[in-house]
Order: sequence, then C-alpha cells, then structure tokens
Amino acid sequence: MDRIESLELNIPATAKLRVVIIGGGFGGMKLAEKLSCKDFQLVMFDKHNYHTFQPLLYQVASAGLEPDSIAGPLRQIFASKEDFHFRLLKVTSVNPDANTISTVAGDLAYDYLILANGVKVNYFGNESVKAHSFPLKTIPNALNLRSQLMQMFERANMSNRPDEVDTMLDIVLVGGGPIGVEMAGALVELRKHVLPNDFPELDFTKMSIHLIEGSDRLLAAMSAKAGARALSDLQKMGVNVRLNTMFDSYDGTVARLKSGEEIRTKTLIWSAGVTGDLLAGLKPDMVERGRILTDENCKVKGSPNIYAIGDVAMMKTDKYPKGHPGVAQPAIQMGAYLGKHLKDFHLGKTVAPFKYFNKGDLAAIGRGKAVADLPGNIQFGGRLAWYIWLFIHIAYLVSFRNRLLVFSSWVWNFFTYDKGNRLIIRSFVRDDDPVGKALLQLNETD
Amino acid sequence: MDRIESLELNIPATAKLRVVIIGGGFGGMKLAEKLSCKDFQLVMFDKHNYHTFQPLLYQVASAGLEPDSIAGPLRQIFASKEDFHFRLLKVTSVNPDANTISTVAGDLAYDYLILANGVKVNYFGNESVKAHSFPLKTIPNALNLRSQLMQMFERANMSNRPDEVDTMLDIVLVGGGPIGVEMAGALVELRKHVLPNDFPELDFTKMSIHLIEGSDRLLAAMSAKAGARALSDLQKMGVNVRLNTMFDSYDGTVARLKSGEEIRTKTLIWSAGVTGDLLAGLKPDMVERGRILTDENCKVKGSPNIYAIGDVAMMKTDKYPKGHPGVAQPAIQMGAYLGKHLKDFHLGKTVAPFKYFNKGDLAAIGRGKAVADLPGNIQFGGRLAWYIWLFIHIAYLVSFRNRLLVFSSWVWNFFTYDKGNRLIIRSFVRDDDPVGKALLQLNETD
Repeated sequence: MDRIESLELNIPATAKLRVVIIGGGFGGMKLAEKLSCKDFQLVMFDKHNYHTFQPLLYQVASAGLEPDSIAGPLRQIFASKEDFHFRLLKVTSVNPDANTISTVAGDLAYDYLILANGVKVNYFGNESVKAHSFPLKTIPNALNLRSQLMQMFERANMSNRPDEVDTMLDIVLVGGGPIGVEMAGALVELRKHVLPNDFPELDFTKMSIHLIEGSDRLLAAMSAKAGARALSDLQKMGVNVRLNTMFDSYDGTVARLKSGEEIRTKTLIWSAGVTGDLLAGLKPDMVERGRILTDENCKVKGSPNIYAIGDVAMMKTDKYPKGHPGVAQPAIQMGAYLGKHLKDFHLGKTVAPFKYFNKGDLAAIGRGKAVADLPGNIQFGGRLAWYIWLFIHIAYLVSFRNRLLVFSSWVWNFFTYDKGNRLIIRSFVRDDDPVGKALLQLNETD
Repeated sequence: MDRIESLELNIPATAKLRVVIIGGGFGGMKLAEKLSCKDFQLVMFDKHNYHTFQPLLYQVASAGLEPDSIAGPLRQIFASKEDFHFRLLKVTSVNPDANTISTVAGDLAYDYLILANGVKVNYFGNESVKAHSFPLKTIPNALNLRSQLMQMFERANMSNRPDEVDTMLDIVLVGGGPIGVEMAGALVELRKHVLPNDFPELDFTKMSIHLIEGSDRLLAAMSAKAGARALSDLQKMGVNVRLNTMFDSYDGTVARLKSGEEIRTKTLIWSAGVTGDLLAGLKPDMVERGRILTDENCKVKGSPNIYAIGDVAMMKTDKYPKGHPGVAQPAIQMGAYLGKHLKDFHLGKTVAPFKYFNKGDLAAIGRGKAVADLPGNIQFGGRLAWYIWLFIHIAYLVSFRNRLLVFSSWVWNFFTYDKGNRLIIRSFVRDDDPVGKALLQLNETD
C-alpha cells in the first residue's frame, strides 16, 4: 500500500537504543514488560489496539464471554512505561540491510527489531475456503462467527424450505486441534442448554456438529491419551468426529470431502492450519516452511539485530527439531528470555540458549470435561482437568479486570446453564448470501 | 423491499387472539411481560435480537460499559412464555383495513396490533448531517462512535498536520437534551482521567468539547433549575456550551452554524431530535407531527384494534397536550396499562384512561454530578442526585445479569478512574474518510 502523505510515525528521536516490536500478542507483550525503558526506547506496532487472549476466543464466538473479558487495551497495559510508543498500524515491510521498517506512515530506523507478529490462518491456497469459511484467530473473527450462528438460527426459524433449515443449523468444523475441539464442545453446550429455550419451534436434536480432521487423531500437539479422551468425550456428547478425512472445497453451502462426500452447511469453521505472518523484505534464507528461523538465542538467521519470538519463530532444538509448539507458553517464555537478555546480547555477552519449560497442555471439551498433559508424563481427563483448565486460564489473563470478568461470567454460566452474550452486535453477512444481505440492509437502515 | 421467496413467518395458527407487537423496547417489553399467553398469542418483531437499555448507551459509546451490560436477548427474556414468538425482522407496512402487517417474509394477520417501535433520529431533512454525523440511538451506533473516538486519537498521534490534530481531538455535540449532556460529561471524564495516560504525546488540554443547543437552555424536558445546574456544571468541567445557537451543516470536517461560524471536527454527535418510526400504511389521520395519535386508552385514532405506546405514540391529555415526554417511564407505564387492560378492551369493558405518574427525571453530568427533578417539585443537583441516578439506572435494568455487570463496571470505574472498554472491536470508518478506509483495509486484511 502507498505511503499516506498526511501521516507520520512521530516517534521521538532518542539517544537510547530503539527496539521495534511487531505484535502485541503473548510474546511481544511479555518482552515489552521485561525490557527496561532506561536502556531502550520501545516502539510497538499492532493491527488491534488491544492484546487478545486467544485461548478463549472460542468462548466469545459461542456467546459465553464478551470481548472485553479477554482483551486488554495495549496502551493501558504499558501506560506506566516512560518511553513506550504504541502505533495502531500494520508494518508493511522490513529492510534488514537498512535497519528500518516501513509503514504507510513512513519508515522507522531500529537498533533491534523483534518479530512477534505470530501466525495467520493458513487456507493452503484454497480460495473457496478463504472466501466462505469462518476463521477464529481474532476478536472480529469471533464476533462475526457469533453473529453468523445467531443469524442462522433466526433465519432457520423463518425458512419455508426444510432442507435449508438443516443447512442453517448444521455446523462443520475443519481441523481437530484445540480450536476445533473446544469450539465443537461449546457448540454442544449451546445446542443442549441454550438454543432449545431460545428457539422452541426448531428441533435441535436434528442439529449436526461435524468435526473433520485429516490425521488419525485429535489434539495432535498433546498426548495420544488426551487425543483419545477428547475423541470419546466429543462422540459421547454427540459430535460427529471424522478422522482421516481429507477436506476438498466449500462454496458457502456445500462442503466437499476428497472422498466425494458432501455435507451441507452455512457455517464452516476453519481451524485446519496456520502459517507465519511473514513480512515483505525478509531474506529467503531467514524463512523455512512459513516460519522465521532463529538460533537458540532467538536471533534470526543471518541478521545481527533481528529477533523472532513466539508462533512466527522456528527455533530448531534437539527436543523440538521442527520448532516449538504454536501455543502461548513458548511465546511468553521467549518474550521473557529476550526481555531479560537483550541488553546482554547488545553488550556481546554469551548467554545460555533459550530452554522451553513445558508446563503442560490443556484443552476444555465441555462442562466438567477437559484433558490435561502435565509435566512428568501425567495425563488425565475429566472434572479435575477441567478445574485445572479453568484455574490456569483465569491466572494467565492479562489484567485483574479480565480475570474478574471471566471469573464472574463463568460462575454465572455454570449456575444458570445460560450464556448471556448472544447479542448480534456486529452483524455479519457473507458476500455469497443475498438473503442475508437483504435482511441486514432492511434491519440496519435508520 | 420485495418479498423474499425462501422466507416464511412460520407463526403457528391459533384459536386465541393474536397480538402483534412491533418493537421490543421499554413499552413493547413491558406489554409482552403483562399479557397472558392463556388469552393471547404474542408475536414480537424487532430489528435487533435484544432489548436495549437506551439511557446508558452513552456509556457504551464512551468506553465505560460493554454492550452486554445494557442489552438483554429478547428470546431469553420471554423464554418462559408459552405462546410467544419473536421474529428478527423489520415490519415494512401495516394494512389497517385488512388487519395484517407485511414483512419480506410474508404477511401476518392480527387481532390486535401494538405499535411500540419508538422513534428514530430526526435529521430534519439535513442530508449533510445524516451522511457524516454520529447518532446515538442503538448499540451499533454506540460502538461505531466509540471506534471513531479511539481511531481518531490513534490517528491524531500519527498526524503531521497540526491543524488536523485539533480536528481529530475536538468533538461537537448537537442537541442539549439528556444524550448531549450526559455524553459531553462522559467525554470530559475521558479527557481528564483516561486519555492523557493512553496518549502521553497528545495534549488533551487542547481538546475542545462543544455542546450546541438551539434553545436558551439545556435539558428542556426537565425543570429550569436542572437545566441551569447542568449548564453551570458542564461549563465548570470545561465544556463549551453554546445556547441559542442554530446549526446549519456538516461535511465531515467542518460544522457550520447559521451565524456563519465554523467549527472543525471529525466527530459530530447528533442528538438534536427524534421522530416517530412511522410504518407505511398508517392512515393520514392517525399521524400528527411524526407521532401516532391515540385516545386515552392508547387506542390509535380511527382504528378498532391498533394501539400505540411509548415514544411513537401521541396521547394528548390535559396535562400533556403535546403528548408524553419521550423517555422510558411513559413507555413502561403504557405497556403495563395496555397489558393489564387489553382483555378488558376486547370484552368491551370501560376502562379508566391511562394516567402517567411521573416518578421524576434524572440526568448524570459527571463523576459525582447529576440533576434530579422528583415528584412534589423537589429539584436538586450534585452528589445525592448522582447516587439516586446510579441506583435508579441499576434498578431499571432488564435482568439481574445486567444489573450485576453494570454495578461491577461502575464500582471498577469509580475506584480506578479507568474505563476498560476502549477496544476497537467494531472498526468504523465513514465514507468521507479515505485515509481511515486505507488504514482499515490494511489492518483488517488477513
């Protein structure tokens, strides 16, 4: 995109070292928290003005939580930092030779550049999926999906085509990782406890929830035991889990599998893959399979002053020959490591390599149901795992306010079996849905 | 709009009397609550799937509350009613002779029709204002305004044109009623307690807040004392209140007054008037000055079976020769009255006319500042009025969940001086803002 003449980055000149951090996710946020503004001037870029607690996005999409429960305004988080500068702007390219980044508001020179901009949804070049499916990576994604679900139920209630009703109620999730598993579970809760009260005229026993996974198991990043437990729990809850099933295409109504089988749905949730959000200007040898290669100090291959942390980084180690898992913990730990040692690196000190301590993995499946892999090869599922899941997610939320809001929403949802957040506050209609467009125009005019 | 072939209203046939209620605001909601489904089948239409507690919309716009704190899903509110049917759909016309209403999903016959669809923003035919200003009647309106404010501050921080910075920070409110007064006060709180921490590089002492009113006083629906107190409070808080000032036009940057004076602003909040949301098909003699004429039983003039309640209705009485004030109380009381007596009307009984009991009027001006007119000619302002305002607004919220959320947000905001909800979750850019469009496209792609 072209330079916009009326804009300027307006970052004050400084005698300190300037650290540019791209991304206010788990890694970038922890890094900015740890770096001292006595040593560095910090400049953070993000496309949203808030940090998103991504592990709970599926609860925003399924009407269990409001966005402000899981998001924290980045300016507020760093309000006490003296020389911290936030810009709500996408960085369009990196220029490693010139030590600058480019934006539509101009270029900025850096002493150190930290790539912490995470991953984006990978559609594997499948344009039909990109055009019609619902991803679940951002808060706008989650609100769009929530609106889609609620709008489809309202529409199903007003349809005179019985075959269309099924298409509007049924949901297909592609990808059996944490998003697919947790969202499928949340949809079962909605189907069981909420929707029959809201729409007594619709028969939700006919609502199918399909979870499609290409490999032979769920939750590939967790233990085999966790995957098997998630599978049996979801099946008992009535999710139609299809393993070893390759997905082909989706036109907004018909999802086609490689086998030729078709599933009709107006709502296809895509969580089958992610790929690093790679900026233009990175050198080809910095990148491998969509991620940025770093050494064990988080330093990008071939660069003296660019670092990469979190999902976007690929640090190959003996234990993680393909890089670390794309979850919050490695990002947080890399952010903390780099925050602690960036000054040492600048001073030329030798620093022990980054070591990931896996505190464990958790996935919620439904009310009272979760799976846990804890350090020491402890693997279990059920109610205890669910309590641990609840506790850990509350504990890792970014602010006390977030923790309070999520805790009270969960207490409320637990005792009432209700989800209060099923408001269509961000109406969303896909381009391929003329009836939806007509209704939206009608209802939103005036 | 044309009939959409694939849709049908799907309201079950019934031997009971069918009551169609248009609008789930204060009046329609109270009416539906009171009417018994033993006597009547209830069908409610609304353009949103939730009831909005309009008196607190300005707090959503000013980042003090989230939408779910002040909205309640209509299906949930009436989940226990056996023969209640909600349709998320605009009614396009009324056919009094045929006793039907029309929608894009088909027509519906009624035995009784209740017009409770309230008012819409009145731009008095001024297309320039309609195209560029921000109204504040709905939750999408409030979120758009919040996004606009936050985006403008981010943009001001990146501007290289000092004159544009003022245009982005300054705000003009047109209309000195409760929305204008309460929103002006909330903007002062933001300017004082929140924005300087968030944007240390911007000088908010230069941010002007203009409140423009055509008449010679604020809060025309309240006592002269309340209006004078609101004026002096706002002036002390640094709001530039301009009484007796006629507004002329607005092009998205320049607000022009009738005097020829110009005020530059990117954000003009329009609350200068409302007019009844009149459906096509109403007979000319049913309408007077944009509202629907009713007798003192809420029955629409010239119709045996159409009633109108709330803002959209004009019931002329000795005490209220121009109809009742357009606030929540008359709507609630009319809804309760009609809910109690509709069966009596049907049976041909004589019913005492509706009598409005004015419980008082309140408006909040800022932290610890409000004005109150209570029955018995008691008029006062200050901290006590503010406590009463807080209490009444909590008490009248639609659900226990809403009350809990608003109460905890207010406690939080009071002690921290903070407003946590300044997330841009529904980005909004006006058509007249190419730079905003470019930035939005850049940040929202992928």
